[in-house]
Amino acid sequence: MNATQKQCIEECLECLKACNYCFDSCLNESDLNSLKGCIKLTRECAEICEYAVSAMTRNSAFMNQICQLCAEICEACAKECRKHAEHHEHCKKCAEACERCAEVCRSMIA
Amino acid sequence: MNATQKQCIEECLECLKACNYCFDSCLNESDLNSLKGCIKLTRECAEICEYAVSAMTRNSAFMNQICQLCAEICEACAKECRKHAEHHEHCKKCAEACERCAEVCRSMIA
Amino acid sequence: MNATQKQCIEECLECLKACNYCFDSCLNESDLNSLKGCIKLTRECAEICEYAVSAMTRNSAFMNQICQLCAEICEACAKECRKHAEHHEHCKKCAEACERCAEVCRSMIA
Amino acid sequence: MNATQKQCIEECLECLKACNYCFDSCLNESDLNSLKGCIKLTRECAEICEYAVSAMTRNSAFMNQICQLCAEICEACAKECRKHAEHHEHCKKCAEACERCAEVCRSMIA
Repeated sequence: MNATQKQCIEECLECLKACNYCFDSCLNESDLNSLKGCIKLTRECAEICEYAVSAMTRNSAFMNQICQLCAEICEACAKECRKHAEHHEHCKKCAEACERCAEVCRSMIA
Repeated sequence: MNATQKQCIEECLECLKACNYCFDSCLNESDLNSLKGCIKLTRECAEICEYAVSAMTRNSAFMNQICQLCAEICEACAKECRKHAEHHEHCKKCAEACERCAEVCRSMIA
Repeated sequence: MNATQKQCIEECLECLKACNYCFDSCLNESDLNSLKGCIKLTRECAEICEYAVSAMTRNSAFMNQICQLCAEICEACAKECRKHAEHHEHCKKCAEACERCAEVCRSMIA
Repeated sequence: MNATQKQCIEECLECLKACNYCFDSCLNESDLNSLKGCIKLTRECAEICEYAVSAMTRNSAFMNQICQLCAEICEACAKECRKHAEHHEHCKKCAEACERCAEVCRSMIA
C-alpha cells in the first residue's frame, strides 16, 4: 500500500466521522428546515466514505473508480455544508473534512 | 420512482443474495485454490450492490454514477464466475444474477 | 437455508426499502421538526436491516444475535413511525414493515 | 462523546483495517485451505466494525448493544487468527487488533 492510499484511507475515515457527527448535530438544531440538504448529503457522504475505506483496505481492483465517485460526493457535501459554516461549527468542520477527503481522492486517481 | 429504478433495486438485491451465497459456498469447495478470484469478487460485488440498493431506496442524487460503477463490478464478477459455472451451480447462478444486474444498471444510466 | 431464514431476508429487505423511502420523504415534509426522531431511526433501522441481510445471505454464524438486535431496532423505529402514521402514509407503511420485520426476526431466534 | 467512545471508534477502525488486510492477504497464501475460517471471520469482523463505527459516530441509541455484538465477533475472529499467528504476520496483527477492539468494546458496555 503506497503513501497516497494510506492517506486516502485516513481522510475518508475523518470525513466519515465529521459527516456522521454533523448529521446527528443538524437534527438537534432549531433551524432544521434550512439543514435538510445537509442531513441528506452528510448521510450520502458517510456511506461512500465507508464504502471507499472498505474497498481500499481490502485492496479492491476498483478503488480508483470508487475514489472518483467519493471525490464527487465529498465535493457536493462540502458545498452544502459551507453554506452553514458561519452558523454551525459542525457544518464548518464537516465541510473542511469533505474538502480534504475530496482532494486526496483526486490524487488517488491522478 | 420509475419502473427501471424499481427493477434495478430488485436485481441488485438478487445479485447481492447470489454473490453472498456463492462466497460462502466457494469457501466450502475442495478446489478452493481455483476460486480465489471468485471469493474476492463476490464480496466486492455484494458490497457495491448493497451500496446501490441503499442509494436508490433513499433517492440519492448520485444513483446514476453508482449504477455505472455497479454495472462494471457486476460484469467483472460475472466474468470470473462464468469460468467456474460448469463445475459449480452457485457460480453459474451468481454469474447469471450479475449479468442481469449489470444489464439493468446499464439501462438506469442510458 | 430454512424457510424462516428466507422469509427473514425478505422482510429485512422490505423494511430497508420502507425505512429509506420514509427517511427521504420525511426530509420533504413541512412538519420537519416533529419528524426528527423518525429521520434518525429510519436511518438506524435501514443500517441494521442491511447488515442483517448481508449476514444471513452469507450464512453468518452470528445471524441469531444480529436478528435479535434487528428486532429491537425495528421495534423502536415502528414505535416512532406509528406516532406519525395518521399524517404520513410513508410513516404508516414504514411502521408496518418494521413490525413485520421485528416479528420474523423474533421467530429466527425462537 | 466521552473518552471510551472515542477510543472505541479508533480501535474499531484499526480492527477493520487489520481484518480487511488479513482477508486479502489470506487469499494470496499457499496454505489457503487452512485459512477458510480466517477468510470468513475477517469479513464478518470487518462488517461489524464498520457498522459499529457508523453507529458510534452518529450517536446511535443502540451503540452499547452493537458494541456487545462487536466484542463477541472480534473475539471469535481473534481466536481463529491466533491459530495462524505463527505462520502469517497478517494473522498475528489481525488477532492483536481484534483483541484490543474486543477489550474496548467490553469497556463501552461495562
